[in-house]
Amino acid sequence: MKTLPTLNRRVVLASRPVGAPTVSDFSFEEAPVAEPGPGELLLRTIYLSLDPYMRGRMSAAKSYAASVEIGGVMVGGTVSEVVVSHNDGFAAGDIVESYVGWQEYAISDGTGLVKIDRTRGPISTALGVLGMPGLTAYSGLREIGKPKAGETVAVAAATGPVGSLVGQLAKQQGCRTVGIAGGAEKCAYAERELGFDVCVDHRAPDLRARLKAAAPNGIDVYFENVGGAVLEAVVPLMNPFSRMPVCGIIAWYNATSFEGPDHLPMMMRAILSNRITVRGFIVSDFAALRADFHKDVGRLVREGRVVYREDIVEGLERAPEAFIGLLEGRNFGKMVVRVSPEN
Amino acid sequence: MKTLPTLNRRVVLASRPVGAPTVSDFSFEEAPVAEPGPGELLLRTIYLSLDPYMRGRMSAAKSYAASVEIGGVMVGGTVSEVVVSHNDGFAAGDIVESYVGWQEYAISDGTGLVKIDRTRGPISTALGVLGMPGLTAYSGLREIGKPKAGETVAVAAATGPVGSLVGQLAKQQGCRTVGIAGGAEKCAYAERELGFDVCVDHRAPDLRARLKAAAPNGIDVYFENVGGAVLEAVVPLMNPFSRMPVCGIIAWYNATSFEGPDHLPMMMRAILSNRITVRGFIVSDFAALRADFHKDVGRLVREGRVVYREDIVEGLERAPEAFIGLLEGRNFGKMVVRVSPEN
Repeated sequence: MKTLPTLNRRVVLASRPVGAPTVSDFSFEEAPVAEPGPGELLLRTIYLSLDPYMRGRMSAAKSYAASVEIGGVMVGGTVSEVVVSHNDGFAAGDIVESYVGWQEYAISDGTGLVKIDRTRGPISTALGVLGMPGLTAYSGLREIGKPKAGETVAVAAATGPVGSLVGQLAKQQGCRTVGIAGGAEKCAYAERELGFDVCVDHRAPDLRARLKAAAPNGIDVYFENVGGAVLEAVVPLMNPFSRMPVCGIIAWYNATSFEGPDHLPMMMRAILSNRITVRGFIVSDFAALRADFHKDVGRLVREGRVVYREDIVEGLERAPEAFIGLLEGRNFGKMVVRVSPEN
Repeated sequence: MKTLPTLNRRVVLASRPVGAPTVSDFSFEEAPVAEPGPGELLLRTIYLSLDPYMRGRMSAAKSYAASVEIGGVMVGGTVSEVVVSHNDGFAAGDIVESYVGWQEYAISDGTGLVKIDRTRGPISTALGVLGMPGLTAYSGLREIGKPKAGETVAVAAATGPVGSLVGQLAKQQGCRTVGIAGGAEKCAYAERELGFDVCVDHRAPDLRARLKAAAPNGIDVYFENVGGAVLEAVVPLMNPFSRMPVCGIIAWYNATSFEGPDHLPMMMRAILSNRITVRGFIVSDFAALRADFHKDVGRLVREGRVVYREDIVEGLERAPEAFIGLLEGRNFGKMVVRVSPEN
């Protein structure tokens, strides 16, 4: 019998950031590994997903989900191995999609755990192209964006896990795809590997003119995950009866002041004149699409018709710094922390 | 045989307003009345509708419809009598819904003319509760707002032709209705005559607190026709999965500068967190609902279950001043100009 772990390292919220988080907003703790009770499991975290939404959980402001308490373990999606199971649904050695946050070990009663089919691809994809970000792209595009062949679909963070899938799915549906990303390297990757018709660097001073040239027939679907200057540049290009699924506004997550000019009148005027539909969504709203998603996107990944890129950092101790970089766009692909080895 | 008119008085656009229009942006002209050719009709304008959207037509900026040219007759919905008909579809004496603009006489080839059934009620209602504003309220609520019994529906310009019908229809569907209007007199009318559960004066300094008290369970449908400070106060009260049909933003129509703070981040955050659907529409998008609308709302008006109020000014010469007042909220009810007598 394997020796059971005794020490759990975890990252807790030390303070609520004002503006951009710093490493001092997180603190590392060690605690004994608890023993699973009847019906419970002990999980070992292999991969921890880092995602922009976590910035919202660090704030006390009301949002669609509860804040992390000060001193509480940072939340997050994880891929874990079942170390001990007192639950009939799972066996030791199973790999599961879980949501146990920034820690090495966790106790679970099995709620919300989903076994990962290892034949589907690398298990880390359960946090990216075949996980929450993938379902975000798939469901937002299918249920809100509703692109038709020949239309133009634009998406920012085009090399990230959501944007890259949005672009590839839209392209396969016969759309012109316009990516927006930070820097020449990401843009080149978006065009060459992800198949975007064109990718525009959002750092370019003439962003608006470049976007206009990239979308000569206007934009029919803008998959909104960034907000900020990109949104302001996209809105004037939106076509009549265009759609804007909104799943994130990362550019504003760290903002503490909102100086003018006021862009709301411009936005509302565009919505009215062009009958735009703007609709926010959270991936959990579309949980019912999960089976379709796994079938459709799983097949595309297996067939190599959808590619993805992961940005994996080693060790839980690097999670805060990696998360801060994610908010600044320093990652290149789906940000994942390898907390412990796969085997 | 009646003597045919020879002189047509009309109002043309003299200059494009910067900010609020002034009377000098309009000019009066006299011209001979043209003779209708084969298939054409000569129309005499009885009522001219004044509506906020006309402000957009005075600007050169791209919108969902073409601008009025400098020197061109101001556009607008009208109720007219057929004076001479060389068109088999119409006879002299018919009363028709038309769109011939700010003038006493006009030639039409019959396109777009709709005969008005005089048994339906006063013919002026074809410009209000049974016309374009009424269909705006009916279709936006039905197709986008989709209120359910027990939900809270809020609407601004609550005593105007759109807002008053939105409130009455929503009330009949079992909703709590919150009106927003300018001044105590309008608010009292909204509550007493239009049946709003409560009406809030948007001029109150504590608008936000009053709205919150008026909508203790939050807002499920905000029928947006004003923009500005009202919109900014409403958004934080919007519930999860709420809907916002957008048919106008009158508060911003005259705006020439958009000083900060920037309210777009607040709006996008609300859209995301609460999964709000914001969708712009123009009444013509829902032309297919016209028959349903006339049947449903026509019956409610006949049965006295929907009331309406008209603000009628006498004479085309007063149209510019009345229109300027409309943009400032000085009207009380549907703004109509009686251009010539009914008989």
